Amino acid sequence: MISLEELQLAARNHGMPLEALRHPITPAGLHYLLIHYDIPFVDAGAWALDVEGAVAQPQRLTLDDLRAREAVEVAVTMECAGNGRALFDPHVVSQPWLRDAVGTARWRGISMRSVLEEARVEDSAVEIVFTGLDRGIEGDVAQEYARSLPLEEAMRDEVVLAYEMNSAPLLPQHGYPLRLVVPGWYGMTNVKWLSRVTVLAEPFAGYQQSRAYRMRAHEDDDGEAVQRMVPRSLLVPPGIPEFLTRARTLRAGICVLEGRAWSGQAPIEHVEISVDGGATWEPAQLAADDLGRWAWRGWTYEWEARPGAHRVGSRARDAVGNAQPLAATWNVGGYANSAVQWVNVAVAEFGVTRERARSGASRPRPARPSGSRA
Amino acid sequence: MISLEELQLAARNHGMPLEALRHPITPAGLHYLLIHYDIPFVDAGAWALDVEGAVAQPQRLTLDDLRAREAVEVAVTMECAGNGRALFDPHVVSQPWLRDAVGTARWRGISMRSVLEEARVEDSAVEIVFTGLDRGIEGDVAQEYARSLPLEEAMRDEVVLAYEMNSAPLLPQHGYPLRLVVPGWYGMTNVKWLSRVTVLAEPFAGYQQSRAYRMRAHEDDDGEAVQRMVPRSLLVPPGIPEFLTRARTLRAGICVLEGRAWSGQAPIEHVEISVDGGATWEPAQLAADDLGRWAWRGWTYEWEARPGAHRVGSRARDAVGNAQPLAATWNVGGYANSAVQWVNVAVAEFGVTRERARSGASRPRPARPSGSRA
Repeated sequence: MISLEELQLAARNHGMPLEALRHPITPAGLHYLLIHYDIPFVDAGAWALDVEGAVAQPQRLTLDDLRAREAVEVAVTMECAGNGRALFDPHVVSQPWLRDAVGTARWRGISMRSVLEEARVEDSAVEIVFTGLDRGIEGDVAQEYARSLPLEEAMRDEVVLAYEMNSAPLLPQHGYPLRLVVPGWYGMTNVKWLSRVTVLAEPFAGYQQSRAYRMRAHEDDDGEAVQRMVPRSLLVPPGIPEFLTRARTLRAGICVLEGRAWSGQAPIEHVEISVDGGATWEPAQLAADDLGRWAWRGWTYEWEARPGAHRVGSRARDAVGNAQPLAATWNVGGYANSAVQWVNVAVAEFGVTRERARSGASRPRPARPSGSRA
Repeated sequence: MISLEELQLAARNHGMPLEALRHPITPAGLHYLLIHYDIPFVDAGAWALDVEGAVAQPQRLTLDDLRAREAVEVAVTMECAGNGRALFDPHVVSQPWLRDAVGTARWRGISMRSVLEEARVEDSAVEIVFTGLDRGIEGDVAQEYARSLPLEEAMRDEVVLAYEMNSAPLLPQHGYPLRLVVPGWYGMTNVKWLSRVTVLAEPFAGYQQSRAYRMRAHEDDDGEAVQRMVPRSLLVPPGIPEFLTRARTLRAGICVLEGRAWSGQAPIEHVEISVDGGATWEPAQLAADDLGRWAWRGWTYEWEARPGAHRVGSRARDAVGNAQPLAATWNVGGYANSAVQWVNVAVAEFGVTRERARSGASRPRPARPSGSRA
C-alpha cells in the first residue's frame, strides 16, 4: 500500500508505459522523469554555466557559447536508481516506482572533456561537482541538487553537456537549458538545469552523494555508492489490458513477444524468455545494435500462445557476466530492484468479442472473457 | 492509502506538476494524460478516418485529406473528470488523481462540423459516436474506447478533429494521428487515436457513456452524465519543497502568488485568495484573457508573507455563478472533486541556508529550517 505522500510523488514523476518499449527512441513526454524538488522556470537568456574551483581558467559559458562549439550526440538509455522500489518487501518509502522508470533519448551537446580541458583542471583535482538550479529540502538539508563524478568518469568520451533531446531544445522537465548526461550511470547522475561545474581537490560529500544513492543493507550501514545500471530486460505486455488491474488477455496463436534490455556495465549479450513462470527458458533473438553501446538492445521471441493461463518474463545478461536476478537484494534506499518482470497473460481460443459502437437499442453484451476482472 | 493496482495507473497516467501552471501553454510531456488501455502504435500511412452511419455520403479521410483542408486552432484547457478523486473520503478505487490532472494546449485540425456537413447527416441523427483504436476490457466489457456527443454539441464552432498539439504532430500518447477536442468538456470526451465517426439515430449506450462517467450518489443510482468542467482554480505552490512531503518553506517578504482558473460552463469572472485557511478572502488580479474562452485564466495576488505557518488557497467563480466549493460532493465514480487546494507554507524570517557544493572536508550542515520534515 502507498501513502498519499508517495502518491504525490507518483503523480509528478511518471514512468514510461511499457508498450512504449516499441519505440527505439522514447517519444517526448514518455521518457521517465524523477524531479526531486520543483521544475525551475529558467530564463535561458540570463542563464550561464560557471566552471570553477580547481581550474586555471574559470569559465562562464552562455547557451550561445555552447551551441557555437563542436556538437556531439549519443543515444542513451537512462533509468532511475529507484526503479522497482515499490516491489520491495519490506516497503521502502520514497518515489514508488514499479518497473517503468526508464527511457531512451538522443542527447546532443558538447563534450564534457572539452570544457574541462579548456578550463585547465589543476593537478590536485579528484572530483567534479555538478550543481543544478533545482532547490529544496531533503533529509533536513536545504540544498541545490548536486552530484559529483570522479575526474576520470567526467573525462570519458561520451559524457555530454546536453542542450538538445531528440533534436529539440530540452523540455523544461528534462533540464532546460542544459543538463549533464553520463551514459551507463543511473539517472541521478545526469544533473538537470545545470548551473555550476566545480572542480574539487577532495571528494564531494553533499547530501545526494554521501546520504542518498547508497546501497545500504541496514540503517547503520554506510554502504557503497550506486553508480552504473545493472542489467535489466523489460517486455511489451502482450494482448489487451483490463483498465484497473492491467490484467492481459490475448488471442491464441503466434504472438511475437518484444522488449528491450540494457546494462550500464557492459553490452547485453543474451536475453532469455520464459512463458511458464520460470520453469523453462529459451533464448530471444537480439536485434541489430544500431543505437550504439549506451542504448538498450531490442529483442523478439516468437511465442505460440495456447489457450490457458501463462506467466511471461525475460531476463538479460551482459558481456561481463552480470545476470538479471529472479529476486533482487533488499536495501534501505530501495535501489536497483532489477528482478524479472512477470506478466500474467490469459490466452483465449477466439480472442475477445468487441463492443461495437452502434446504437443503444442493440447494444451487445460480450461474453465475459477470461482475464477480465473477477 | 493506495493499492498497487492503483499505483500501476498512477505510474502510467501522470498529472501536470503544479509549478507548470507558470506556463500559459503546457509544454509537451507536462500535460496530464489518462489512457484507459494501452497507447496504440499507429501507422499513419495505413490509417484513415471513417465517417459512417446515418449519413448520405460516408467518408474515408486520410491524414493528407485532413491536412489539405482549412485548418482551425483553439487553445483548450483539458481536465480529467476524475481530477481530485484520491482526495474523496470514502476512498474511490480508480486512477488516483490528486489535483493535477489538467493541462492547456493549442489544438490544430479541422472543424468537426465541416466533416459532418460534407457527409450530409440525415434528419434522423441525434448523436455522434467517436471510436478510438485503443482496446481493452473494463467493467467486464471488451471494447474499443468510444464516447458520443449530442449532434448540436458536435456542430459547435470550436469542436476540432486535431492532428497537431502546440504546432507539432500529436504525440503517440495524445492520440496520434488524430483526436477529437471538445472545448469545455472533461477529458474523456476528447477521444484519442480516432478511427470512426458514427452518426446514430438513437442515443449511444456504450460502456463509457452508460456506465462510466456518470455522477452517481450510490451504486443503484443511474446518475447524470458528467459533461462540462466545473470551476476550479489552482496555484503554483510558493517557496521550495521538501522532497517527500512536498511541504513548502518560503522566505518572509513579498511573494506574488500565481495560478490559473477555468470553467467549462462560462468564463471565469472572479478568483479569491485566502492565506489563512479560509478565514478571510481577498480578490486576485485576473490576467488578460489572451488565450480565449476555452483556456484557463491566469491570476496573481501579492502576498506579504510574515513568519509563521500559513494555509494558502484560491477559489474561482464563473460568469453564470458556479462557485468552486470548499468541499465537493462525494460520488461513486469520484468525479469532479473541485474542492479548494490548500497549501501549507512555513514562512521563515531569513529563508533557508543552502548546502554549498564545495568539499567534503568542510561540508556545512545547515541549521534545520522551519518547515523541514519533523
